[in-house]
Amino acid sequence: MEPTPRSTVRRLAQLAVYDPGTIASVLDAGLVAHVGIHYQGAPVVIPMAYARVGDTLYVHGSTASRMMRALKTGDAVCVTVTLIDGIVLARSAFNMSMNYRAVVVHGHARLVTDPGERMTAFRAIMDHYVPGHWDEVRAPSDQELRQTLVTALPLDEASAKVSSGPPDDEEADLELRVWAGEIPIRTVAGTPTPDGNVQAGVQAPASVSHYSREFGVVEGPGI
Amino acid sequence: MEPTPRSTVRRLAQLAVYDPGTIASVLDAGLVAHVGIHYQGAPVVIPMAYARVGDTLYVHGSTASRMMRALKTGDAVCVTVTLIDGIVLARSAFNMSMNYRAVVVHGHARLVTDPGERMTAFRAIMDHYVPGHWDEVRAPSDQELRQTLVTALPLDEASAKVSSGPPDDEEADLELRVWAGEIPIRTVAGTPTPDGNVQAGVQAPASVSHYSREFGVVEGPGI
Repeated sequence: MEPTPRSTVRRLAQLAVYDPGTIASVLDAGLVAHVGIHYQGAPVVIPMAYARVGDTLYVHGSTASRMMRALKTGDAVCVTVTLIDGIVLARSAFNMSMNYRAVVVHGHARLVTDPGERMTAFRAIMDHYVPGHWDEVRAPSDQELRQTLVTALPLDEASAKVSSGPPDDEEADLELRVWAGEIPIRTVAGTPTPDGNVQAGVQAPASVSHYSREFGVVEGPGI
Repeated sequence: MEPTPRSTVRRLAQLAVYDPGTIASVLDAGLVAHVGIHYQGAPVVIPMAYARVGDTLYVHGSTASRMMRALKTGDAVCVTVTLIDGIVLARSAFNMSMNYRAVVVHGHARLVTDPGERMTAFRAIMDHYVPGHWDEVRAPSDQELRQTLVTALPLDEASAKVSSGPPDDEEADLELRVWAGEIPIRTVAGTPTPDGNVQAGVQAPASVSHYSREFGVVEGPGI
């Protein structure tokens, strides 16, 4: 993907990645999108659930949500997904850093009105969090569908920034008797816990009982 | 803390928390701040390291960073810190949700110029990630200090939103033979790994070798 002026990474540009495979793999591994809009004269950044389908990023929310109502107008939006992979400890305070994967998407969201595309987005968002679970729960009623907005953001102005590996110390600091390296950080799923109302004899489906996603795992090409 | 119009949570307002202890505990448990500004006519959201000291949130960065140069002008900024605690699976697709703790701070950053406050911020940011490590590494040189900007954001327009507990199913759905509950999500530190240049006989200090921070742990009052 050719970066646009807006999607060109300036700071630490050597860490920038524009290939769609890397961008997709970071978005697919992420847990939460930080969605930024300009609202009543000031920036607002809100965490939201999301999913990627091809080269489109979907978010959904209540018709009562100010964020959703702002997004559907098509104003400029920035969506950032970040995975923290480690704390990088150098021999100097100055060179302390983090290992991370982040994707920043600029663009304008489109309100999704086609019922088929809306259902694709709903299913994709649930699949993003618990693959296969959509078919195991009650589908949305007409009333629930009327209460939910879906917006789509194209990924054509997206960039990734990926930092990994050991600290980048000054040559002269390598002689210091200071430990340096990485504390890895992982985001992991624990053991699923049922609520108090599960009917007798109902077991967690495999999508839940075998859930072992590690959000910190590096997947896909280019990383 | 009394919320201002801008810091008043509208959506799912029953989850809103304004007490400074809760806001502080979420900020102190977080790993990354998503900093949003309005830049050249569009929102930009960038992940940044940060620390809280009292009722001030500090971020620092290179003098070459566009984000830092924008922050120091004192334009409106929104900083959001989010911790994901679980995936909440309801009996219906509509009621699927997340458990999370998020803090949203609105305001205007101030460029920190006082050398003592700058050093306080540097130390606090390192302490936020690895408590006690500041005194174990080489302190910043004058040249490194000249290359680093520090900005301070007051927490007087901050709000927290905390979602926890089991799914909130429709009464009628409770009879469905569908499993419901929570998949807990935790962000944890792994075993520290040295880089290839650690001098013979240099061991990791206790701040590193005993590092066991679990970013998902709920701490502090009010949660």
